[in-house]
Amino acid sequence: MTRETLVTAHRQGIAVLDGLIAHGRGEAFDYLLGEETSAPALVAERAAAAYLVTAKRPVISVNGNVAALAAKEVARLAVAIPARIEVNLFHRTNARVKRVVRALERAGAKDVLGLRPDARIPGLASNRARCHRSGIYAADVVLIPLEDGDRAEALGRMGKSVISVDLNPLSRTTLAATVPIVDEVTRALPNVARFARTMQKKPREAERIVRTYDGAGNLAAVYAFLRLRLANLVQTSRNQRSRAH
Amino acid sequence: MTRETLVTAHRQGIAVLDGLIAHGRGEAFDYLLGEETSAPALVAERAAAAYLVTAKRPVISVNGNVAALAAKEVARLAVAIPARIEVNLFHRTNARVKRVVRALERAGAKDVLGLRPDARIPGLASNRARCHRSGIYAADVVLIPLEDGDRAEALGRMGKSVISVDLNPLSRTTLAATVPIVDEVTRALPNVARFARTMQKKPREAERIVRTYDGAGNLAAVYAFLRLRLANLVQTSRNQRSRAH
Repeated sequence: MTRETLVTAHRQGIAVLDGLIAHGRGEAFDYLLGEETSAPALVAERAAAAYLVTAKRPVISVNGNVAALAAKEVARLAVAIPARIEVNLFHRTNARVKRVVRALERAGAKDVLGLRPDARIPGLASNRARCHRSGIYAADVVLIPLEDGDRAEALGRMGKSVISVDLNPLSRTTLAATVPIVDEVTRALPNVARFARTMQKKPREAERIVRTYDGAGNLAAVYAFLRLRLANLVQTSRNQRSRAH
Repeated sequence: MTRETLVTAHRQGIAVLDGLIAHGRGEAFDYLLGEETSAPALVAERAAAAYLVTAKRPVISVNGNVAALAAKEVARLAVAIPARIEVNLFHRTNARVKRVVRALERAGAKDVLGLRPDARIPGLASNRARCHRSGIYAADVVLIPLEDGDRAEALGRMGKSVISVDLNPLSRTTLAATVPIVDEVTRALPNVARFARTMQKKPREAERIVRTYDGAGNLAAVYAFLRLRLANLVQTSRNQRSRAH
């Protein structure tokens, strides 16, 4: 079903072909992770909510795949925090930005930035650097679902707290993020929104989580989980193969 | 570069969008495997050569992704064995079969089957089942690079020896194959061709390998290699992250 959605989004000019290949990579990792939110991912999602709720200028960055797969989830999360939404495309054309903005608006998003960029992210080439002064450029906390490593690293160098959503637990994006969420985007964003709604009522708890959150420790737990899953998968596969042959 | 090739092949109507997503899944596994032929994969490639060289009616099955990524490698392997080539598409239309046949012929392949199927693989629905009586249907050994699990299993049920090339060490295709090769297709096929050329001169060795080959044992070695690679990757990632933060 997700594949169908993405293929349709490609036909509509929202997702690009590279985005389809990237989605396939995510699928492989999600298969290894068991296609559900792991305990360490849930901890990261709670930390993400704490960072977003206590931020002065939180922004959610959206690309073609995110708009195709999780427009509604982005719109709802933006309300829950509340945060700005900015469209930021790797293969940027104005026509494509417009289509992505429209897809987000149809899903309920308001005041989506991206069409009139007036600033640049330092250290990135060409169109990929363009952003809004009132959006990503001035943000203190940026949520970047399905983002590439270059942008994740560049935003980190600007001193921002970066929250990634990426199924590859070893990607440069995951390694660069302050709060790396290793989970599928349509599972991750509603979890973050749920935690955000609870934390709105408990600002002290949110502040404590931000102060004490250990990204490296959380990733270590993700890796331990992945090793365990792999061992289980191998055992299951052996049994299946010996039954088949 | 591989991604570019595939995107171009999609524009030419050779690779389909599902094929791009499937390629992404392969990329993720190849990343975990280290993007080179592992020792267990090399053993499987030698066994594949032995099966193909000693076969009475060996056939190489080719789909859109294989034609896009490895047309030359297929053509050369077909000469080395020698084997028939048959185009067999999941999303079959006559126009697409023609384009794939032409891509193979441009790469040097001769007498490619696929355009006038006159038999069916039992247990498969609709167009995916169509094949040639003088090709896949009557083959005793079939090489199926980048194939889906249903077809791999159906060919196995027909009593054929099935050789798969699939980067997912846990896929149904890999589990169903007599000789599962867990390697990237443009690395795997030339290796099989090289082994085939040597074995042409040593028929007794080829027969011995076919007699003694242990697919389950080989897969166990692949899994052990994958666990080792994962442990190394995790260590490298931890070092990178602690340098970056």
